[in-house]
Amino acid sequence: MPSSHDIPDTGPFSLAAARARDANDSLAFMRGKFSLPEGVIYLDGNSLGVLPKGTADRLARAITEEWGEGLIRSWNDAGWIDLPHRIGGKIAPLIGAEAGSVIAAESTSVNLFKTLSAALTLTAGRRKIVTEAENFPTDNYIAEGVISQFDKRHELVTCDHPEDIIPALDHDTAVLMLTHVNYRNGHRHDMRQLTKAAHDVGALVIWDLAHSAGAMPVELAASGADFAVGCGYKYLNGGPGAPAFLYVAPRHHGKARQPLSGWFAHKAPFDFARDFTAAADISQYLCGTPPVLSMLALDHALDLWAEVDLTELRGKSLALSQYFIDLVERRCQGHDLTLITPRDDDARGSQVSFTHPDSGYAMVQALIARGVIGDFRAPDILRFGFTPLYTSFEDVWRAVDIFAELLATRSWDTPAFHRRNKVT
Amino acid sequence: MPSSHDIPDTGPFSLAAARARDANDSLAFMRGKFSLPEGVIYLDGNSLGVLPKGTADRLARAITEEWGEGLIRSWNDAGWIDLPHRIGGKIAPLIGAEAGSVIAAESTSVNLFKTLSAALTLTAGRRKIVTEAENFPTDNYIAEGVISQFDKRHELVTCDHPEDIIPALDHDTAVLMLTHVNYRNGHRHDMRQLTKAAHDVGALVIWDLAHSAGAMPVELAASGADFAVGCGYKYLNGGPGAPAFLYVAPRHHGKARQPLSGWFAHKAPFDFARDFTAAADISQYLCGTPPVLSMLALDHALDLWAEVDLTELRGKSLALSQYFIDLVERRCQGHDLTLITPRDDDARGSQVSFTHPDSGYAMVQALIARGVIGDFRAPDILRFGFTPLYTSFEDVWRAVDIFAELLATRSWDTPAFHRRNKVT
Repeated sequence: MPSSHDIPDTGPFSLAAARARDANDSLAFMRGKFSLPEGVIYLDGNSLGVLPKGTADRLARAITEEWGEGLIRSWNDAGWIDLPHRIGGKIAPLIGAEAGSVIAAESTSVNLFKTLSAALTLTAGRRKIVTEAENFPTDNYIAEGVISQFDKRHELVTCDHPEDIIPALDHDTAVLMLTHVNYRNGHRHDMRQLTKAAHDVGALVIWDLAHSAGAMPVELAASGADFAVGCGYKYLNGGPGAPAFLYVAPRHHGKARQPLSGWFAHKAPFDFARDFTAAADISQYLCGTPPVLSMLALDHALDLWAEVDLTELRGKSLALSQYFIDLVERRCQGHDLTLITPRDDDARGSQVSFTHPDSGYAMVQALIARGVIGDFRAPDILRFGFTPLYTSFEDVWRAVDIFAELLATRSWDTPAFHRRNKVT
Repeated sequence: MPSSHDIPDTGPFSLAAARARDANDSLAFMRGKFSLPEGVIYLDGNSLGVLPKGTADRLARAITEEWGEGLIRSWNDAGWIDLPHRIGGKIAPLIGAEAGSVIAAESTSVNLFKTLSAALTLTAGRRKIVTEAENFPTDNYIAEGVISQFDKRHELVTCDHPEDIIPALDHDTAVLMLTHVNYRNGHRHDMRQLTKAAHDVGALVIWDLAHSAGAMPVELAASGADFAVGCGYKYLNGGPGAPAFLYVAPRHHGKARQPLSGWFAHKAPFDFARDFTAAADISQYLCGTPPVLSMLALDHALDLWAEVDLTELRGKSLALSQYFIDLVERRCQGHDLTLITPRDDDARGSQVSFTHPDSGYAMVQALIARGVIGDFRAPDILRFGFTPLYTSFEDVWRAVDIFAELLATRSWDTPAFHRRNKVT
């Protein structure tokens, strides 16, 4: 156990203070809308959001009544056919998008393929796709895939540091493709500044909102963004592998070609016309038949947002992550943890990451064994996500309390633990 | 009402004969494993298969326990991560595929994009993609999309008749891309003959099995097929928009490039490596995070096949469709219906289609209003699917009985019916 001087009874680092913050939290009422497992402090909503209550009932009704009884008729009668647009309409206000500019479809990777391909058809003659080396890997893998197929003349320029991005933009840049909040260190880009810098050289911008949508307000339209993609299963709580979303600025509708031109992208899919004619609206970015059951879980989860003020959401998100940093720095000193997340509010997303030179994986496993679920990202990162809809200040306090105890006792450093958790 | 001479009390066209056939049906026991709605004769399992019993319970458990309690841990603990392969492993025997050569992923359209793109990387220098004009539209739309992006030198050659296909193949043909059973007329191609003809000129073959998988045995490996795609929500009963599947012959594993190179296609997704290195096995054809809830419904539905003999399945399928043809030709004469489905067993899939010069849509709506669900395919096709797992001979008899009555009374030909059903 940590020594008692580590646990103040009063003052800003006491459990009482954490509880007082929860009592004053204007979003605290949202926690009751989720099914949080007993005995778990969940700091991994940035990997998979928790279960909104009512999801099982919604899916049971969809399966038993809509599928079982309605069968094929439910495409119209239960509105399945509209799901990509209906879900997009619910996501639009969360990301500052114009009405009719967002759809739910496939995965973030597939949607990035569509939008990057489309962006390249709008920037013919330009050769560079600028991104970050530390972007979420699938984004850069997809860019490699697009380049391999598109014409092989494009080049992926990977910047090592955020401050290298603007200097990398030039009149040969076709697309700036960035993840708004970095999945590893939680660094948040300035969307307005970078979008403007890209536009200033005539390039288009694609934002990956995987770690922003549902964690903070996003201003796609106000920033002038061209395209965006994002994830349904993190802060939007749509369930494991929930469909992703895709944004195209209205000014680009009907202008670009996206090559995943399946029947749902056709202007009249049920005419069964021989030749492809793209829809003139955002439907052009659909492809195949949507996975209705997974779509319905996401659709249900999005109804929770009707009661959420996004400015309050961002305020709580920053308060939770700042509180975690403060507590770890006070109570977990002397264990070689290095904060890699920006301290500056404007540059921080909704997560906090530390590195540890050799025991990061073991520490995360030890935390999970005690019910504190964060995650490890190779090679050395301990990552903790703060989902303002359901994480409490007491959660943060208790997580750090357990972390401090584990560090003090090095609970993971036993042969049995290593065997059990395959620490290598 | 039809006149009584139309309804024989005895003999091969009597209701008693239909019931006798059901009593002798070795697959009749399978019907009890599905939830069939009351008052419906469902001849549209080739659009959306019916609900397997137990699906709602399986999904409720997945939602409440695996997602709700297990959260991120369920990717490993509940085996979500293996779903694409596990489902592929259950589909493989249904389509005559080698172990480890099938995955479930995304939609048929997206999977066709992957396989066609991959096939083109294996046939560099060849220019033609040969298909049918009357292929399911999304297949040809996707081919247009691949061509638009790939290098624009390829050409989609669309044959108007099945007998035009082999003459269209030449040494400039890269890929022969066909749907095994035509979605409109139910014509079934000879997979062995056409695959051999394509290979004889050095081309590769992609089969779309949307209307064959789960309706009949398919012999991919024995035919020497190169690639295949197919649908999870028709004869496989995976639910609305269920994930599709994809086959790659083992000899091509690790040889081609598919451009939807998302993280699940990487040889080690969770290393988060900066550069893309394709998996050497079928995983190379995955892309983004799979939609787990929709995957689980398909996974559950596939367990039904353990008790099904595919030769019996094909026998019953052909018997049902032949019986429907015989009954319609006997009882629905004189109403301008023209059979467009092959009478030859070898050339027929698991559906029967008629054309009608002007009232096809109205007739289908009138049938649906009476609980007989088939579908209309523009411009003039009445399409009826026969799903041998749950369709009975009595279903077929009753469907034709109702059809004959509707035709005799022209029940759809009233202003009220037209208004209600928007017949134009």
